[in-house]
Amino acid sequence: MIKMLKYLSLLFVVFSMLHSCKQKATNDSSPSIEPSSRYESEPLPSWNEGETKQAIVNYVQSVTETGSADFIPVSDRIATFDNDGTLWSEQPAYFQLFFALDRIKEMAPDHPEWKDEEPFRSVLDNDLEGLSKQGLEGLMKVVMVSHGGMKSEEFKTQVREWASTAMHPTKKKLYKDLIYQPMLELLDYLKQNDFKVYIVSGGGTDFMRAFVTEIYGIPTERIIGSRISTEFKIENGKPGIYRLPELEFIDDKEGKPLNIEKIIGIKPVFAAGNSDGDLAMLQWTASNSYKNFELYVHHTDSIREWAYDRESHIGKLDKGLDEAAQKGWTVIDMPKDWKVIYPFELGN
Amino acid sequence: MIKMLKYLSLLFVVFSMLHSCKQKATNDSSPSIEPSSRYESEPLPSWNEGETKQAIVNYVQSVTETGSADFIPVSDRIATFDNDGTLWSEQPAYFQLFFALDRIKEMAPDHPEWKDEEPFRSVLDNDLEGLSKQGLEGLMKVVMVSHGGMKSEEFKTQVREWASTAMHPTKKKLYKDLIYQPMLELLDYLKQNDFKVYIVSGGGTDFMRAFVTEIYGIPTERIIGSRISTEFKIENGKPGIYRLPELEFIDDKEGKPLNIEKIIGIKPVFAAGNSDGDLAMLQWTASNSYKNFELYVHHTDSIREWAYDRESHIGKLDKGLDEAAQKGWTVIDMPKDWKVIYPFELGN
Repeated sequence: MIKMLKYLSLLFVVFSMLHSCKQKATNDSSPSIEPSSRYESEPLPSWNEGETKQAIVNYVQSVTETGSADFIPVSDRIATFDNDGTLWSEQPAYFQLFFALDRIKEMAPDHPEWKDEEPFRSVLDNDLEGLSKQGLEGLMKVVMVSHGGMKSEEFKTQVREWASTAMHPTKKKLYKDLIYQPMLELLDYLKQNDFKVYIVSGGGTDFMRAFVTEIYGIPTERIIGSRISTEFKIENGKPGIYRLPELEFIDDKEGKPLNIEKIIGIKPVFAAGNSDGDLAMLQWTASNSYKNFELYVHHTDSIREWAYDRESHIGKLDKGLDEAAQKGWTVIDMPKDWKVIYPFELGN
Repeated sequence: MIKMLKYLSLLFVVFSMLHSCKQKATNDSSPSIEPSSRYESEPLPSWNEGETKQAIVNYVQSVTETGSADFIPVSDRIATFDNDGTLWSEQPAYFQLFFALDRIKEMAPDHPEWKDEEPFRSVLDNDLEGLSKQGLEGLMKVVMVSHGGMKSEEFKTQVREWASTAMHPTKKKLYKDLIYQPMLELLDYLKQNDFKVYIVSGGGTDFMRAFVTEIYGIPTERIIGSRISTEFKIENGKPGIYRLPELEFIDDKEGKPLNIEKIIGIKPVFAAGNSDGDLAMLQWTASNSYKNFELYVHHTDSIREWAYDRESHIGKLDKGLDEAAQKGWTVIDMPKDWKVIYPFELGN
């Protein structure tokens, strides 16, 4: 129950944020800079030359070149990436929360009683202030009704259908188009150098698995996230895995290294995140006896994306920023380091 | 607590079994038949020609040949194997239980009080009857003291050291030598055909990971098992994952398909087990819309290994045997299907 409250309070601040949303301007009409093609042999084409790109390239070369003092065997080349705010945008709220709201609206015709019943009435009326007044209990209902109570494969189908049509409220793009082109190139670069690349995110495992493999080229079994409880049942001779309306594991903060150890069983040598929720994962990685690399995406681009850090209700980066400075971790400064933010800016 | 009791009762029957052990004769001096080398191109050299081998080869060919009506894309070629009794022996008790007993003896010099304190006194005196009198609570102490209370990496070092020297009580071989040569060849055959091969076992994840990658050639992240709870802590600036003396997840019965869905996220097309504890995993696999294969190892070899099934306290195969017959699953008859049991019989 405590962990559920923690999770919900997380979502709740997101809601507050959504409600009183004062996000900085976002601008799709930023000049369409033409970086070199993503597929040419030069790594990281959408990254500007500079310390950040050079640090990444130097690291990868030093641990992969045969005979290097810092060489890491392929079996130990584990790289873990947070997702929200690290591989795709997370403003003005986590994409998964928009899914929950959209899902409630889609389910509403089968639930005429929701018109007069909170928290559903507020969701259906787009009354986010009303919804936030329902508190944690109301939010819990929204999340559990939209994420639990169906078979695992049905849920994934619902997410997949949503992802193929739902539009981001301010960017007016499909959510899956709001991934970071430079980070896609980084994933590719690591994969080309025989790193096993994992997502280790606070987002829902099955939510991500439904469509994230396709956009990042990361196989299902390397997508790790938060989970709700499930149950195996045989009904009418057919076995099924049913999603229950209760949280089982929150893959955030110290949950990240714990899940990495449980599921991967090898300490990463490369980890990337964007918030204090990723700090434990980066600390765990930094304790590797192999040469290791810790990377923070610092959201500093109020023009092309969003700018937020220490005071943000979502993706708060405060302790992490201090520790990065203290330990010499690499911090991405988006306007300085990235030629483009999203793939559609490439104009291909 | 309920699941802990379940798990302990499982171990408990093993203890009873160990105590009143009437295992059938095992005979290392069985004629050293020379199968063709494990590495030649003909698959499954230690398998006798016959229905079982043919069924496996037919299946693999039918789902991997381009243009076949039953072709399965590489990303969906997931194969899951139980471990105890399926890939290595499990008599007269699970190998992990011998580890627990040996570990208590090794720790004893630091715990002089154990000489007068149950359940440790019984373990130190090799008095298994005395130990079984301590009931579940006593057994719980033995398991938790030997498996919890240390850092994750320390535990793996302890297991690795044990595995490199500890001898099986009746076979007088290292435990890691008591793996099934024909199953090793099956793992290889599937891997050569681009199956992702996983272990999904009731045994402890970290216990297996400590030395099982080496003997089966299965990477750490594809070894799934039961787990105790863990905690992430930073002490003196050093992050560590600490094993707590409590069970977190039991990877047995319906726990197997649940864990497969949580960790792999794809329904297997091939599954192998040897007991009713594997039945849910086989049922889940059998519900795959791809052509699928379910395999049971039936312990019928009282001469070279052990013979047990419906009445056994360990590796009980009763419902599974009925369902296999009813659904036409493949059941290995060890004396008939396997030329040798263990790799050392090859005489290489």
